[in-house]
Amino acid sequence: MLDLSSSRPRPGVAPRARIAPAQVVVLGFLAAMIAATGLLSLPIAHAPGERVDVLEAAFTAVSAVSVTGHVVVDTATAWSPFGLVVIVLFIQLGGLGIMLVASLIGLALVRRFTLRNRITTGTENRAVDFGDAGRLARGILATSLIIEGAVALLLAARFALEYDYPLGEALWRGGFLAISSFNNAGFAPWSDNMIGFATDPFVVLPMSIATILGGLGFPVLRQLRKEFGRPLHWTMNTNIVLVMTAALLVLGTAYIAVLEWGNRATIGAYDAADRILVAFFHSVQTRTAGFNSVDIGQLNPETLLGMDVLMFIGGGPAGTAGGIKVTTFAVLLFILLTELRGEGAVNIFGKRLSRAVHREAITIALLSLAAVMAATTALMMISHLDLDVLLFEAVSAFGTVGLSTGITADLPPAGQVILMVLMLLGRLGPLTLGTALVLRQRRTLYELPKERPVIG
Amino acid sequence: MLDLSSSRPRPGVAPRARIAPAQVVVLGFLAAMIAATGLLSLPIAHAPGERVDVLEAAFTAVSAVSVTGHVVVDTATAWSPFGLVVIVLFIQLGGLGIMLVASLIGLALVRRFTLRNRITTGTENRAVDFGDAGRLARGILATSLIIEGAVALLLAARFALEYDYPLGEALWRGGFLAISSFNNAGFAPWSDNMIGFATDPFVVLPMSIATILGGLGFPVLRQLRKEFGRPLHWTMNTNIVLVMTAALLVLGTAYIAVLEWGNRATIGAYDAADRILVAFFHSVQTRTAGFNSVDIGQLNPETLLGMDVLMFIGGGPAGTAGGIKVTTFAVLLFILLTELRGEGAVNIFGKRLSRAVHREAITIALLSLAAVMAATTALMMISHLDLDVLLFEAVSAFGTVGLSTGITADLPPAGQVILMVLMLLGRLGPLTLGTALVLRQRRTLYELPKERPVIG
Ligand SMILES: [K+]
Ligand SMILES: [K+]
Repeated sequence: MLDLSSSRPRPGVAPRARIAPAQVVVLGFLAAMIAATGLLSLPIAHAPGERVDVLEAAFTAVSAVSVTGHVVVDTATAWSPFGLVVIVLFIQLGGLGIMLVASLIGLALVRRFTLRNRITTGTENRAVDFGDAGRLARGILATSLIIEGAVALLLAARFALEYDYPLGEALWRGGFLAISSFNNAGFAPWSDNMIGFATDPFVVLPMSIATILGGLGFPVLRQLRKEFGRPLHWTMNTNIVLVMTAALLVLGTAYIAVLEWGNRATIGAYDAADRILVAFFHSVQTRTAGFNSVDIGQLNPETLLGMDVLMFIGGGPAGTAGGIKVTTFAVLLFILLTELRGEGAVNIFGKRLSRAVHREAITIALLSLAAVMAATTALMMISHLDLDVLLFEAVSAFGTVGLSTGITADLPPAGQVILMVLMLLGRLGPLTLGTALVLRQRRTLYELPKERPVIG
Repeated sequence: MLDLSSSRPRPGVAPRARIAPAQVVVLGFLAAMIAATGLLSLPIAHAPGERVDVLEAAFTAVSAVSVTGHVVVDTATAWSPFGLVVIVLFIQLGGLGIMLVASLIGLALVRRFTLRNRITTGTENRAVDFGDAGRLARGILATSLIIEGAVALLLAARFALEYDYPLGEALWRGGFLAISSFNNAGFAPWSDNMIGFATDPFVVLPMSIATILGGLGFPVLRQLRKEFGRPLHWTMNTNIVLVMTAALLVLGTAYIAVLEWGNRATIGAYDAADRILVAFFHSVQTRTAGFNSVDIGQLNPETLLGMDVLMFIGGGPAGTAGGIKVTTFAVLLFILLTELRGEGAVNIFGKRLSRAVHREAITIALLSLAAVMAATTALMMISHLDLDVLLFEAVSAFGTVGLSTGITADLPPAGQVILMVLMLLGRLGPLTLGTALVLRQRRTLYELPKERPVIG
């Protein structure tokens, strides 16, 4: 397991972190992606008569392990049942892996943070021990399986009763969708993704709930389970994630519904309630599952731009969602509000925000923005498609969302490689960067004289 | 004049700022824009046979006073000599005004900052007195007139000798261009802006130098004049502005030259040296004068996107350039580098950056980004043009650049009003926001317990 503790724990000394954890995580994900590529390249993984080349297999593998959902071949027709099982297992592995790693880091972080604020004792000196990791892993696995199981049964019942699928088929599709939803993966076993179920609340609402729960992140799920009735005990992390998730879901639904209201190629042909249902479903998808129940390529460009912002923000930390995380965004937002109010300290829901977080949040947001801008520019150079669809594709890949206007399969191989790099960066970048920033020792040998430039 | 001092100066107490200065500045600029609109609406301001309506006059007035250079009527043909004189005088007024106000604030800021760091005495308690303001105003006026005069003479000589303009005409056009260049306004008295002189270094280089000098800002110009040979005495502000300006000019030139090298509609038809000259000229224009010597509408979309970034950053503070300012960008960049290096304090060129600046820089960058995104979305809703040209138009207006792919005049009136608001916001927003953030008293009555969320 991960050893985040000091190599030589000494009483009264804050633990030292190695850089190793970040490297272990990156290597683990790369290994899973390579294994998945190998399995998906086997002829047994392909549907009869279908040919999937190595780039397509690798793209699908990276997309599955990073729980993105971008596809270059039709999920419903290209793969054999074996191929689909490989995809769904690697989705589960990717989702569990990221939750476990991020939760371990979060735990280590909170402990170190607590340690710094009180007198340290010898026994509390190890950041995370093996018992912790085991308990966390069991908790995450149990949480995932319970939610996925419940949603799978709901979906299977609906498929069997309303759509006359045979029971085995209904269970398989329900299970696939439940895993894909809770892990925010966005793979669906239909060629048109979820368009065929756009207005069926008994399909899209269970999926939405699984997506939202996965996107809250394990620390929030654990606290809700243990202290649901005691909101005053909730951490700053839980408060931020819940409030921001609710706010973004409502704002996203309103934005999409208003802008697409009269667009008959998307929601305009439905009645009012269904328009709002479909708008809500897509607002959920930007946090960051990436299923679609309308043709994304038919959305207005200004709708795409708004969804770019939502996808860039993403979901909660230590969950299955991507993006810079609602907490990173909230930190920046509260810094802004504090400045506009003229207050001295950044206070969030009755707690003072640790000052070290300010610079970490800026760093993650800026590097993420730079990655998306650089990738978009590169995609423009090699594809000659319009800025709006390429920006959407890049943000969607970096945010591990997987929504697409339909251009993914038509991009040249270099463009698909850029998307693969973005998915990997988007999945591991903020996490490992956050880890490296947070767990290291700061070198402050001497202080220079202070000065300030004129800004604005 | 501006009274930035305390209403009741008491020995040993840091001065209190009123919010008033920001209001005075906004009202002053609005008054200038209204006066210019009135003058440009007079029939005497229009060329014979030309009709300019009130919206066009107002747009031109806002564009001139904010030194942006966006136009909805052809500067060369729509206006009478009287109209052109009005335009150039209001450019000069806008440029002088912003330099004076920003320099006064900068001075007050530096004094307060210095006061905080040493024992205060009664006599130093007033942040800015009337003598200071007068000296600053004279210094700014003299600096402007000397640089503009020199560049005007160089350009006039070239126009008279090489292009056979009559002497009076050569002087008028040279003077107009010199004022428009130093004030980063981008208005030119030719219908095709500077395309006719694209490869004449004796025209574009003097203009570039005037633009760069204006964009450095008065505090840097003053320090260079007084302490040119003593770089160790330079302030953090001077160091940042010089290094960032040089870096952005070189990077911008390289970016534009490489991406447009083979584009025969822009620079591809010229020889290598001229291609680099034209690329350099446009790199200069993003800092933020906004002249053009190629058809901006023919640039590759990825070139436009890179220029968006450059225009958003803009030039130096307390000068005639717009954007969020190179200092704001540098603060964010150095915070990022500090985090990646794992250092405790943000050090820039051997000085430690005041921590209060971190949050101010985030605030200005985020609000500016929000303004540009909101305006772009609104422009998409009302115009149905592509994201790349609308984003370029919005960033160009907010950065008071004035470069355009040629869509400005074709936007519906609501779109032109959005651009006018962006020019005003871009000119006054960062300045007055910076002032308000920096000069106020912080309320810190009590401290809450500290906590942090998981980010990334
Ligand atoms: K996804
Ligand atoms: K300009």
